[in-house]
Amino acid sequence: MSGFIGVHAGAGDHSDDASLAYKKICREACKKGASVLKTGGSALDAITASIVALEDCPFTNAGFGSNLTWTGTVECDACVMDGESLAWGGVGGVPGIQNPILMAKSLCVRQTGKELAMGRIPPCLLVGEGARLWAEEAGIPTTDPKSLISDKARRIYNHYKKKLGKEQKKSIDMLSPLDTVGAVCIDSKGHVAAASSSGGIILKHSGRVGQAAMFGCGCWAQDGIEGKNSVATSTSGCGEYLTRTMLAKEAASDLTNASCGSTCLHGTMVNKFLGSPFLAGISEPFGGIIALKCDEEGVGEFLWSHTTRSFCIGYMNCQDKSPKSHMSKLPSGMEPGTKAIVEGVGFVLKQHLDTETEMQSSTS
Amino acid sequence: MSGFIGVHAGAGDHSDDASLAYKKICREACKKGASVLKTGGSALDAITASIVALEDCPFTNAGFGSNLTWTGTVECDACVMDGESLAWGGVGGVPGIQNPILMAKSLCVRQTGKELAMGRIPPCLLVGEGARLWAEEAGIPTTDPKSLISDKARRIYNHYKKKLGKEQKKSIDMLSPLDTVGAVCIDSKGHVAAASSSGGIILKHSGRVGQAAMFGCGCWAQDGIEGKNSVATSTSGCGEYLTRTMLAKEAASDLTNASCGSTCLHGTMVNKFLGSPFLAGISEPFGGIIALKCDEEGVGEFLWSHTTRSFCIGYMNCQDKSPKSHMSKLPSGMEPGTKAIVEGVGFVLKQHLDTETEMQSSTS
Repeated sequence: MSGFIGVHAGAGDHSDDASLAYKKICREACKKGASVLKTGGSALDAITASIVALEDCPFTNAGFGSNLTWTGTVECDACVMDGESLAWGGVGGVPGIQNPILMAKSLCVRQTGKELAMGRIPPCLLVGEGARLWAEEAGIPTTDPKSLISDKARRIYNHYKKKLGKEQKKSIDMLSPLDTVGAVCIDSKGHVAAASSSGGIILKHSGRVGQAAMFGCGCWAQDGIEGKNSVATSTSGCGEYLTRTMLAKEAASDLTNASCGSTCLHGTMVNKFLGSPFLAGISEPFGGIIALKCDEEGVGEFLWSHTTRSFCIGYMNCQDKSPKSHMSKLPSGMEPGTKAIVEGVGFVLKQHLDTETEMQSSTS
Repeated sequence: MSGFIGVHAGAGDHSDDASLAYKKICREACKKGASVLKTGGSALDAITASIVALEDCPFTNAGFGSNLTWTGTVECDACVMDGESLAWGGVGGVPGIQNPILMAKSLCVRQTGKELAMGRIPPCLLVGEGARLWAEEAGIPTTDPKSLISDKARRIYNHYKKKLGKEQKKSIDMLSPLDTVGAVCIDSKGHVAAASSSGGIILKHSGRVGQAAMFGCGCWAQDGIEGKNSVATSTSGCGEYLTRTMLAKEAASDLTNASCGSTCLHGTMVNKFLGSPFLAGISEPFGGIIALKCDEEGVGEFLWSHTTRSFCIGYMNCQDKSPKSHMSKLPSGMEPGTKAIVEGVGFVLKQHLDTETEMQSSTS
């Protein structure tokens, strides 16, 4: 089976020690996704497996270990998009769900299924306590909201709460480096999917929903038709900026129509994020994105870009034995929020190989 | 002072009796908005005044009198976009706020203002109980959530709850005709704004958020630059379909770039709603939209389109003495969800007249 999966564990500012840990969890998340792909699973199933691994990790800002809100609670955002059906599902500001991505996936899948009783249409976005109740009814594991608070998150929360009032003007942007996690994937059939999950910015107001639960903002996935590329994207960084620029959809749109690869993503980041009219007056737009594009021939590229000091990514081609991970960093002397770094790797989906394998097995 | 405001009170299926009442509230909402414009108020202030009037009306599905959720509560969505700053603010699934649009406006305005303490960025979307707490802190009137339940909404709720189980297969789409209210506006300075407010579909799951609280889906507003039209849109209908097609943004994008007027909006409705790949397999996409576009010379058009049986709209040019309202209807024999009706009126912003008036007063 062929397929490719790419993940990120947040755009931010990582220490050397943190880098090792984040790179490791990115590789582990890729392995989880790739193992789904290798057994013929869909891109949607694969990214879900990867995101669950990232959410369960105590030091990513998603699921268990998420940043705490102003009132000391965990409220998670997550969304997922299926490039084949173009369905999307999301949860925003939800308490007490161990893996918010499972809930988002469930809503996404239901979008293309049958209606509810009396012709009601299944929701694509559920928020807050109502979302948790839906999870209970749907058999998605819920938990005591407090059980999602890690010791580290509690310590960081206490630290900043204590600071508040003393240093009102000091920015905490760089002190809270890690945001959204995400994944993009293409499966052996050439279908793409993308996902995003986040605990949101530290000390956020209860009820605040970031890009990870907003359609077009946290992720985008669209199978290629009529000669266009298949594309999947997932964003990370300051939720409000990523929302207002609709970065996930805009980047996907640019990569769908073009054959220009990394140059194209750089153009998106420069013109539609750093220089976006939607962010006029914002001096330091912090953001990152992973993107996967694949043409009709199965020739693909996995790209990543960020305006933050660092961005941790991982990826795995199912044809390879092991995943790779990388901590991308702005060159020294370059100020975060002013320039966009773009890097990437190529891959081949090898759809033809799959076809041959199937033919052999049918004649043996 | 010049300016133009257009409103809608929902795409649906109105009886003749209901038509009279809905047309009346549309005219009243226009008057409220126009009175703001006439005293030099901004488009943002004008649409807010109009939406407050529509929310306060007991028989629209927004604010007081909203549809009840599955559990018998009122949970409101609303959003507003400022075409000058391109800022957007929204609230989703919020209980106990008399006028959700005031909250959305407050968040929209704060997007362009100063940061919160410690460099935190003001949220653009707040949901649920957390949103209500923010309103309390911000001095936006809150109320006992039960006080937003009208007698009519309670009767309708009881009626459908009783039906459930007996007629599982019968669609209630046409039995719950009225959805989102909205407004679009251009002020004397040529700035545009748009807004949307909704109680959501009847018997929705608690926590469900519809297009009226989703960026790019409930409304869109963008001042014209570099020869492009200024555009404002607001949508109504089935929230999930309007979300997945991002109809407000897509229609605005088409009208911004083109000089083709009503034909252009028809193209959007046919290609990007009725025939959208995002709604593949949906047999009856129900939706409606109002749109305002205005070129550099101040020559504008107010357009409305719908695929539902009827759609109630109102509009007022500040140069006129009184507002107009209209119940647009599909021609008999045309099935809802299969064709899009487009109608519209032209207007002139008369910016030149304003300039002359000001010159006269300054010399008198």
